Amino acid sequence: MANLNQGLPQTPFNPYAEDPTALASTGAFFQQQNPFAAHTQPLQYHLYAPLGQHREGLLPYQRQTNDFFLPEKIREDAQRKLEAAHQVMNRFVHSRYVAQYMLTGSDFRLSNEQAIRLVKEWKKVHNGSVVSVHSAFTTRKFQDSSIIFVYDYHPLSKTLAQHHFPQQQTNRYNTRPTVTEDVMWSYITQLANALQAIHKLNLAARCIDASKIILTEKNRIRLSACSILDVLHYEVRRPLGELQQEDLTQVGRLMISLASNTPANSITANNVNIIMQQMGNMFSEPLVNSLMWLVYPSQNGETKTIETFLSKISSQIMANLDMMLHQNDALTSNLYSEIENGRLFRLLCRLGTINERQEFDGDRQWSENGERYMLKLFRDYVFHQVDANGQPVVDLGHIAWTIMRADSAMANVSPCLARVAWPLSLQTDVGPVPRTFR
Amino acid sequence: MANLNQGLPQTPFNPYAEDPTALASTGAFFQQQNPFAAHTQPLQYHLYAPLGQHREGLLPYQRQTNDFFLPEKIREDAQRKLEAAHQVMNRFVHSRYVAQYMLTGSDFRLSNEQAIRLVKEWKKVHNGSVVSVHSAFTTRKFQDSSIIFVYDYHPLSKTLAQHHFPQQQTNRYNTRPTVTEDVMWSYITQLANALQAIHKLNLAARCIDASKIILTEKNRIRLSACSILDVLHYEVRRPLGELQQEDLTQVGRLMISLASNTPANSITANNVNIIMQQMGNMFSEPLVNSLMWLVYPSQNGETKTIETFLSKISSQIMANLDMMLHQNDALTSNLYSEIENGRLFRLLCRLGTINERQEFDGDRQWSENGERYMLKLFRDYVFHQVDANGQPVVDLGHIAWTIMRADSAMANVSPCLARVAWPLSLQTDVGPVPRTFR
Repeated sequence: MANLNQGLPQTPFNPYAEDPTALASTGAFFQQQNPFAAHTQPLQYHLYAPLGQHREGLLPYQRQTNDFFLPEKIREDAQRKLEAAHQVMNRFVHSRYVAQYMLTGSDFRLSNEQAIRLVKEWKKVHNGSVVSVHSAFTTRKFQDSSIIFVYDYHPLSKTLAQHHFPQQQTNRYNTRPTVTEDVMWSYITQLANALQAIHKLNLAARCIDASKIILTEKNRIRLSACSILDVLHYEVRRPLGELQQEDLTQVGRLMISLASNTPANSITANNVNIIMQQMGNMFSEPLVNSLMWLVYPSQNGETKTIETFLSKISSQIMANLDMMLHQNDALTSNLYSEIENGRLFRLLCRLGTINERQEFDGDRQWSENGERYMLKLFRDYVFHQVDANGQPVVDLGHIAWTIMRADSAMANVSPCLARVAWPLSLQTDVGPVPRTFR
Repeated sequence: MANLNQGLPQTPFNPYAEDPTALASTGAFFQQQNPFAAHTQPLQYHLYAPLGQHREGLLPYQRQTNDFFLPEKIREDAQRKLEAAHQVMNRFVHSRYVAQYMLTGSDFRLSNEQAIRLVKEWKKVHNGSVVSVHSAFTTRKFQDSSIIFVYDYHPLSKTLAQHHFPQQQTNRYNTRPTVTEDVMWSYITQLANALQAIHKLNLAARCIDASKIILTEKNRIRLSACSILDVLHYEVRRPLGELQQEDLTQVGRLMISLASNTPANSITANNVNIIMQQMGNMFSEPLVNSLMWLVYPSQNGETKTIETFLSKISSQIMANLDMMLHQNDALTSNLYSEIENGRLFRLLCRLGTINERQEFDGDRQWSENGERYMLKLFRDYVFHQVDANGQPVVDLGHIAWTIMRADSAMANVSPCLARVAWPLSLQTDVGPVPRTFR
């Protein structure tokens, strides 16, 4: 077992925390975002999730209004994230930074100015699976000597610890999100992506732990808290090769911990064999073999590198790439369904600000025979359609179509405007709208 | 050179075309989309690309209206694609299919009903780098016996042949798009992705040619025309292993042809060595080595598989995966900037269809003291803001903010509506808007 102990470092992981064990399992490094939510009235999403007609009552070629817009789920998810970001940003509007202040009580020494410059190296890491580091600085604003690390902000993200090892019992049966083979491969691939970028720049992550990896979207993880240990442990530097080996071991250990639903610090040299055996029943052989390669020291004594690991899991990387291609296609098609709404909204705002301004009732330019009367006629044509019996008709297609045609100054915009000599353009240099805004 | 000839198949590639050489270089398999464009008035994009104020005149924290919306380039690109799709769909509105009829004059025999069932196997290929096959059927609608293959439709896509070997001189210096190392790796990775999915299902692509690969977005390629050769050559089936080997060779050959700017059919056993040598000056060693591996038969006689190739280029696959992650983030953030516009537009439409309906002037429900008068007041509050001097003010932030607040039925929506007892909700069950639409 001497071999194995060499593979699994037993050194305390979180030197700047009071109790590294507790921290790792609760994910307390990242402050909970709940306190923010209480300050403003939360948006009431349920109020505007449209129900609409039942699909069953329609013929296959008929479409509901909502079929042409973004799916409600994506919109609500985006809405929540934007709201969270907005609330945080509001509080720190005078600063460029969104600061999260953490009281640990631990002492650290920053005796060397050089140490904080290490962060510059980390700023070169531009990777989709690493939370970008912006800068680090010292401050006395908190009535002590603090060191502040600045990272990208990802609203409403959870740590893997919060997601997979929740503290509160979420339901009666205390079921946790199950980790499937696909999720495992997806996590492994993304961590490998992060490590490749980091190791290529002669750095080491040093913080691959469930409490330091954030989950920003479904199955999308990012490695956070990079560079902190490099700065704090500047005086007691360890060789880079050793740290990089440890990164690989930590990835393996984290994945075993997720797969077996055991906290990472309960995995010791004594029980790792049993855990791996149990995993063999639930997961495929290539997955178990990859984890074994990561956790155990190499048999023939050669140095393990991330490049070797990549070539071992190339088929899975490709599967993930294909997944991302599909996701890209889905995102693009969602974006396309919303593509003209911004323009339509702005055009309606233009019309709205001009029409029915009662304060200008005496003005010849705005009166019933002035040039802006045309816009009123156009508004009537767009919105106040009636059917053969004179009953009001709401036709969203007609509204969007006529506004867009008017905007691009096409001929035959509106039959009721046939006697008007120039095309009713909302954007060109001629016409009532540009003249109003001049 | 016997070895090499074995590696590079010299059989005519396009048996259903009159002149396979011409077809391969012009990409005539896919009909040009120009004829469609003449039928309707093309949209005049230049008319509504907003210019706005110069960024220089603003302070860093000030934002222009357009900063909050989708970048103009993405919108215009999407607009063009949607327009192309719309035009094609319009012409075939009674059919589920967008058919492209190609007159080749070649004869083929479909003597066996079993042949067309092969397409069922191809329908299982769901891959981001393969154009999905939907079905194949025979028809006499074109006054002959035709066989129709149905694929996904990607508007405004070009073939690689059209993109990299254009027929018309595009400018005076006849410069072609240069193929950089990154583009090469991106193409290779995507083709490998396609081949992995295809070979896994015990199929072979058989059609990896610049005229059969379409470019749908920037650097995003998809393998098209799959399954055609399988159906047409059903009688003269060749062993699967041989075809899969040929796929790998064809990928290598295509990439060499793109890198050296030589049509694929000009690359023969005689000049391939010289071309590879020249490539060594422009491209990195790993790239040249990968292409050599693809093109030449393996040294020790073992069978080349796509899995082996994947493990060779794993580092590049990872680089592509990271690129896709970044692209996903960019797409998501674009989507987020458009997220509420659809809703805002629909709300303004609701307001517009209710307000100022002159035909109801006599109706007590719609009059100045009816309940819908409130909506008129609200409209005034939203759009007709004035500054301290009574001058009209256009504040898009105010418009969006008040409408959204009204929609989610929040308190204190509008000071001018303070005397109204119930919240002005546009979506809940109470209030004038739902009552109007009931």
